[in-house]
Amino acid sequence: NSQLKIFSLNSNNPLAQEIAQEMGVELGKSSVKHFSDGEIQISIEESIRGCDVFIVQSTSAPVNEHLMELLIMVDAVKRASARTVNVVMPYYGYARQDRKAKAREPITAKLVANLLETAGATRVIVLDLHAPQIQGFFDILIDHLMAVPLLSDYFKSKGIPEDEIVIVSPDHGGVTRARKMAERLKAPIAIIDKRRPKPNVAEVMNIVGNVDGKVAILIDDIIDTAGTITIGADALRAAGAKEVYACCSHPVLSGPAIERIENSSIKELVVTNTIQLAEEKKSPKITELSVAKLMADAISRVYENKSVSTLFD
Amino acid sequence: NSQLKIFSLNSNNPLAQEIAQEMGVELGKSSVKHFSDGEIQISIEESIRGCDVFIVQSTSAPVNEHLMELLIMVDAVKRASARTVNVVMPYYGYARQDRKAKAREPITAKLVANLLETAGATRVIVLDLHAPQIQGFFDILIDHLMAVPLLSDYFKSKGIPEDEIVIVSPDHGGVTRARKMAERLKAPIAIIDKRRPKPNVAEVMNIVGNVDGKVAILIDDIIDTAGTITIGADALRAAGAKEVYACCSHPVLSGPAIERIENSSIKELVVTNTIQLAEEKKSPKITELSVAKLMADAISRVYENKSVSTLFD
Ligand SMILES: Nc1ncnc2c1ncn2[C@@H]1O[C@H](COP(=O)(O)O)[C@@H](O)[C@H]1O
Ligand SMILES: Nc1ncnc2c1ncn2[C@@H]1O[C@H](COP(=O)(O)O)[C@@H](O)[C@H]1O
Repeated sequence: NSQLKIFSLNSNNPLAQEIAQEMGVELGKSSVKHFSDGEIQISIEESIRGCDVFIVQSTSAPVNEHLMELLIMVDAVKRASARTVNVVMPYYGYARQDRKAKAREPITAKLVANLLETAGATRVIVLDLHAPQIQGFFDILIDHLMAVPLLSDYFKSKGIPEDEIVIVSPDHGGVTRARKMAERLKAPIAIIDKRRPKPNVAEVMNIVGNVDGKVAILIDDIIDTAGTITIGADALRAAGAKEVYACCSHPVLSGPAIERIENSSIKELVVTNTIQLAEEKKSPKITELSVAKLMADAISRVYENKSVSTLFD
Repeated sequence: NSQLKIFSLNSNNPLAQEIAQEMGVELGKSSVKHFSDGEIQISIEESIRGCDVFIVQSTSAPVNEHLMELLIMVDAVKRASARTVNVVMPYYGYARQDRKAKAREPITAKLVANLLETAGATRVIVLDLHAPQIQGFFDILIDHLMAVPLLSDYFKSKGIPEDEIVIVSPDHGGVTRARKMAERLKAPIAIIDKRRPKPNVAEVMNIVGNVDGKVAILIDDIIDTAGTITIGADALRAAGAKEVYACCSHPVLSGPAIERIENSSIKELVVTNTIQLAEEKKSPKITELSVAKLMADAISRVYENKSVSTLFD
């Protein structure tokens, strides 16, 4: 059997370390530096000939830097005669540019898929893609993990009475995800239905479903500037929810996000560590759960050629 | 005949403007911005259906940002039904990673070529590639321009007596370029032959050719940290050169470059505008020549389906 090697790039080294620890292996030795002019200089410092190589990299901010690191590393691994080149992307950047919303726009999520294949990736492991259709952007194998079980287990452990919980989707696009969580918590769902009555008139937040007197748990895939989620939390409180929690897979948390969350009616925001939280983004309101075990299990199963999908559904 | 459109991205807008002016056209309307999380947002703001589109972008620092801008723009142009997608890269970043110098290194110059093709480029126009072999990294058409005529004409116009000039290559790799310039100036060449007698002993600069009492003109393709060129200038002075000029196609000028040049025995450094010089890199010692006419002529000839190579040899 060929040997397993896991390499980390620079976007989320703590997660890569944790994954390697879960699997009882050491991270492969490599160096990712910059030349004086800012060009990326990568070298792999141990033999990987004939190995099954897994490269852990989230394409979080700075996204272009992290994506190029990944593409160059894939090229280096391929040219070093690895048997397979598996890209582990806990967070897939540019996933929101997954279609032409207007004329003459790019479809960058598809471009990224093509770039990874061109560089030499033979398989990709991702978690909670913004749109599951992005799986179809790849001609190589892709494994799609979900954080819903992890997030659900956390909320179960809080001991909130089951009949008090309602799982809330912040928009119609997220209903499937909310339903998955609701099933695990044996709770009903509600949906925030935003409508703009006329152009240039503030949006109206209409809540479909009963939240009165309930503990509402908002769930989304990405929380970016946190506008949607904090306004949604206010709407839930106004509709009678006694407490509002929020959770997401990918804490992008850009711009005013932290301030908004801290000033919001959200009691606690639960996120995963697919994106490494910068020090200045840590907040007493934010709880981080680790996807290391989930990713480690997926890597093991891919390496042993077992089914990944049955494990995480 | 299909219509010509020229678009500029963010690396070198003044050069793109100048090229458009040379050609008597307006730059195409497009917007290149960033979302809150740093992802690039591009949109093309006029119809380009059926057009021959030329995108002007140097992949100079920040190279990863500029390269991703270019790839996403190529994707958008392709999806907007352009007839041809021509990439005009006055400076080709990552050109120095054109081979495996050590085991397990990437060949990023080849990766970049593949990424451009994958994104949808149908033709590429470049100037003074670090290694002419990079032309062979492309399966699409590539036109390779040279700055030697432009640089030579500038030195001709200085009125230095022909029999006083010697053109100097700073290393063996640059001899062909130096010879091309020497032919135009009817001057002899010299070569700086660096040798390290033993490991950890300073390099010895040996000058092959006669520079005593001469005006030496050093020519290189890229000047990056300016170590080679400034040390070379000192060696030329020590060997009796009465004045030392230097010139290059691509002024990368990273790290200590400006300081080194200002404190060096180089009388004047002549560069082109393939890379936009940041304000803090402007120096009274540095003269900038414009490649706008050269690039404009190449674009016109490609558009009119005429030979490019005959024009710039
Ligand atoms: N990085 C980003 N930040 C904010 N909005 C984005 C980003 N990337 C794409 N979008 C926009 O988000 C929309 C897609 O989001 P959604 O409707 O939630 O799938 C599209 O209209 C995109 O233009
Ligand atoms: N951006 C860069 N800055 C400095 N050195 C580089 C850069 N990219 C590649 N190199 C190195 O430069 C060498 C190639 O330069 P050359 O021998 O002049 O072709 C290789 O050993 C590369 O590792």
